[in-house]
Amino acid sequence: MTDQGRPPLLLVALLALVPASFALKYIPASPLWLFLTSAGAVATLAEWIRRATEQLAKHAGPAIGGLLIVSFGSVAELLLALFVLLSGQTAVVQAQITGSIIGTSLFGLGLAILVGGMARHRQTFSSSKASLLSTLLILVVIALLLPAVFDYTGRLEGYGHDIRFTDEQLSQSVSVVLLLLYCGNLGYTLITHRDTFADEESQGNAAWSLGLSIGVMVVATGLIALEAELVSGVLTQTATALGLSPTFLGVIVLALVGTSADLFAASWFAHRDKIGLALNICIGSAIQVALVVAPLLVLISAFLGRPMNLVFHNPLYLFAIASTAFVVNAIARDGETAWFEGLLLVGVYILFGLGFFFTGPA
Amino acid sequence: MTDQGRPPLLLVALLALVPASFALKYIPASPLWLFLTSAGAVATLAEWIRRATEQLAKHAGPAIGGLLIVSFGSVAELLLALFVLLSGQTAVVQAQITGSIIGTSLFGLGLAILVGGMARHRQTFSSSKASLLSTLLILVVIALLLPAVFDYTGRLEGYGHDIRFTDEQLSQSVSVVLLLLYCGNLGYTLITHRDTFADEESQGNAAWSLGLSIGVMVVATGLIALEAELVSGVLTQTATALGLSPTFLGVIVLALVGTSADLFAASWFAHRDKIGLALNICIGSAIQVALVVAPLLVLISAFLGRPMNLVFHNPLYLFAIASTAFVVNAIARDGETAWFEGLLLVGVYILFGLGFFFTGPA
Amino acid sequence: MTDQGRPPLLLVALLALVPASFALKYIPASPLWLFLTSAGAVATLAEWIRRATEQLAKHAGPAIGGLLIVSFGSVAELLLALFVLLSGQTAVVQAQITGSIIGTSLFGLGLAILVGGMARHRQTFSSSKASLLSTLLILVVIALLLPAVFDYTGRLEGYGHDIRFTDEQLSQSVSVVLLLLYCGNLGYTLITHRDTFADEESQGNAAWSLGLSIGVMVVATGLIALEAELVSGVLTQTATALGLSPTFLGVIVLALVGTSADLFAASWFAHRDKIGLALNICIGSAIQVALVVAPLLVLISAFLGRPMNLVFHNPLYLFAIASTAFVVNAIARDGETAWFEGLLLVGVYILFGLGFFFTGPA
Repeated sequence: MTDQGRPPLLLVALLALVPASFALKYIPASPLWLFLTSAGAVATLAEWIRRATEQLAKHAGPAIGGLLIVSFGSVAELLLALFVLLSGQTAVVQAQITGSIIGTSLFGLGLAILVGGMARHRQTFSSSKASLLSTLLILVVIALLLPAVFDYTGRLEGYGHDIRFTDEQLSQSVSVVLLLLYCGNLGYTLITHRDTFADEESQGNAAWSLGLSIGVMVVATGLIALEAELVSGVLTQTATALGLSPTFLGVIVLALVGTSADLFAASWFAHRDKIGLALNICIGSAIQVALVVAPLLVLISAFLGRPMNLVFHNPLYLFAIASTAFVVNAIARDGETAWFEGLLLVGVYILFGLGFFFTGPA
Repeated sequence: MTDQGRPPLLLVALLALVPASFALKYIPASPLWLFLTSAGAVATLAEWIRRATEQLAKHAGPAIGGLLIVSFGSVAELLLALFVLLSGQTAVVQAQITGSIIGTSLFGLGLAILVGGMARHRQTFSSSKASLLSTLLILVVIALLLPAVFDYTGRLEGYGHDIRFTDEQLSQSVSVVLLLLYCGNLGYTLITHRDTFADEESQGNAAWSLGLSIGVMVVATGLIALEAELVSGVLTQTATALGLSPTFLGVIVLALVGTSADLFAASWFAHRDKIGLALNICIGSAIQVALVVAPLLVLISAFLGRPMNLVFHNPLYLFAIASTAFVVNAIARDGETAWFEGLLLVGVYILFGLGFFFTGPA
Repeated sequence: MTDQGRPPLLLVALLALVPASFALKYIPASPLWLFLTSAGAVATLAEWIRRATEQLAKHAGPAIGGLLIVSFGSVAELLLALFVLLSGQTAVVQAQITGSIIGTSLFGLGLAILVGGMARHRQTFSSSKASLLSTLLILVVIALLLPAVFDYTGRLEGYGHDIRFTDEQLSQSVSVVLLLLYCGNLGYTLITHRDTFADEESQGNAAWSLGLSIGVMVVATGLIALEAELVSGVLTQTATALGLSPTFLGVIVLALVGTSADLFAASWFAHRDKIGLALNICIGSAIQVALVVAPLLVLISAFLGRPMNLVFHNPLYLFAIASTAFVVNAIARDGETAWFEGLLLVGVYILFGLGFFFTGPA
């Protein structure tokens, strides 16, 4: 994708969405157009950040480079969620987190396996990496279900307001543990067991200068913040205009906007018979949303005085996240993929899409 | 089992159950006798269909033959469920679907592993096939739990009658997706990846003529429909006579009647050290019930104006189906079986049998 | 650990806790001190029993020896739970059972993997044994969730007091099935498939005489019973003194006391690069608690006229047990461990610890 480091023309052209969305903000236009342009701008900028990080990683060497790629990999999701949260739509944030996880793991990975399996009998990948990702997905399920089960238990046992600690306090403690475990994971994959987990892709020389890489990252991140604010501002009106619930918009549309850079990269790598990288990108992105973005949102929101907790009240979210972990585990286990497995992942994604679509309001 | 294509005498003798059940219908006899003879007739006819399909498959060549075997494999379950449904006993149909899944995967497979493991230290099978079956079982769990979680979510969020789409509409959409995924699975196992998934058993020449094979299939299917109607008609009285709940009758007795042909075939193959085929029959049958029979029932029932949905209200059903998937996954993972694994599957089946027995009414 | 059979001085010194705790019982002392000394005495005596059993096993030969090690492996947990049960604190017993399962499988195994992985890149173990243990863990989950789902179903369907059989009767039937399955497991691992599952550790000559081994076992078991009674007597006061709920004390503190001998042994073996043995001890201990201790408690309590059932009303317990099975499955699957997997297990244990800590009363 970045063979020569020169971005394709389309990606340059799509940058026009940034000024377009700013213009639409001040021209009294339909909120739907503002949503479309700003959401498109977020997706475009996320792809620019992905490319800039890749270049920067080549300057920085493997360990720090890996850390950079990982750290900036979810910056679009984080900023998007943060502005939705600041605009007071906590339910939409939970929808977006759920949607990112199932969007990358089911739809993104499924599409990549389909694309990669079109012309090939089967594709293979290193099973030790897939095994680690699968295990981390189980951790994700536990971490995201725990606060809900805790909350349910508390209400079942009738503690109510007598409860010693609130959902917020548990969510914050859980978040700290998750961030620490994620740091442990970084140390494991980037330092102590680098040989097993290193990506062959990060080799080669950088095509962009150090200054250009950093510059693109900083500017694109700043612009994503502005665009994310635009998106969150017109969310409710867009949902009304499209006849959808804000929940469905969050779990399907917003989530795909935030992760579209990953989805494209995954299908591209699968097409080039690098299904292991595709798996890494998709499941890695889902894991990062759960183990980094969600905990950071909890801690930042507490710091900003509008505490958000990790109690997912919607059973469909919890069921979707748990199902994702199990179906990905089943598929990744044997170190091989074929087109039907991709179809199956996309099929499960459509099943959940139907579920979310039908739970919307009348 | 069909080495010479000549059916064993017992199977011919059991055909006497067909006229016997018709006679009992018009002679004022105990409903229990009518139930026993007609249920026995269903099981016998299902075995005849299984043999006829096998012969027909040999005439038809591998791809079409495989399709035939798969399509007619669950015809007994489908007809039985359809007549129970038409007689208005929707709860019993859900019991029967659950019972078929756990009956074949736990009891049928467990028995086959025990039979096969009696004289041998361990038996091995192709793990790529087992892996696909395990993955499909996870899909089954997701597909059958989704409507229940959806329904629960809807009631939790208090949509009530404001809900945009009903359980029926979600169930019908889910059914269409499942049938499409199942078609994808057929294309995968019978066409594009035939080499990996072909059964060695379907080789050899047909012992029955084409006409005989088709004739037996048509007549036996017609008779099963008549017998299924008899069975569903005396269900409630039989349950009362035996002091059992209709639920228990559906989940254990009816389900075993519908799948008994598969159960016998599986144990027979395991005995001949073809545990892979036994696994294929048992898990394949469970998957077909969930991905073909259940969706078809939803769509046919909607067409007939008595819509049945996939919302399994009984948590024990959902728990039994999910547990089955996980325990089969655990056992099939390593490509080996030994007698204790069979005992364990049968033990889990007994645990659920106890659960269903005890939830019956006083 | 028992290379020369001579116990380390510390273990001899710790026996002083036995008279100390008896003395504190009659001297009006703080209940906290009585709790600490008697709990310490239980842990010490459990380690003495473990060593005596090991010696006895060497006298008895492999099959009977294995049976002895297994039978006496959970005697401390059983006695502790029995006395807590007899003092009427059923909820604490369920907490202790849950705590033993997650304490050994998450904390104990996690610590062992961390200890073993400190100096090594990775450790490997026989995957056929790990596979059996993982499968049994799935059975544990099913067995412990079934009564709760049954109870929930019964209340949902509104049977209430019309229900034919009570939770007690289901729990007792389930217990009998579990004990039979466990006997099957013993026959499988100790007799028919001994070659696959034999521990290399049980070889070598006994360092203690037959009489000494039996003597230590009998005396230590008797003393544990007395100490267990002391522990259960001061439980509520200790919880109050520490500002903890009795539940938290049961699920974390009591459980670790009962299994501490296993935890130490596991870390010791992992340190000596015998991670397979560590896995066997930790998961084996969890399985025994669920398949032997819990069923025995149900049957003994019924016999004593104070029936305890297996209905775990606290959803956090059920969630913790199910999560443990899945995360251990994910880690044990590949037959390899590295330090991060240990960290992850300990991290999940801490997550549940937080959950249990926060559900306590004000």
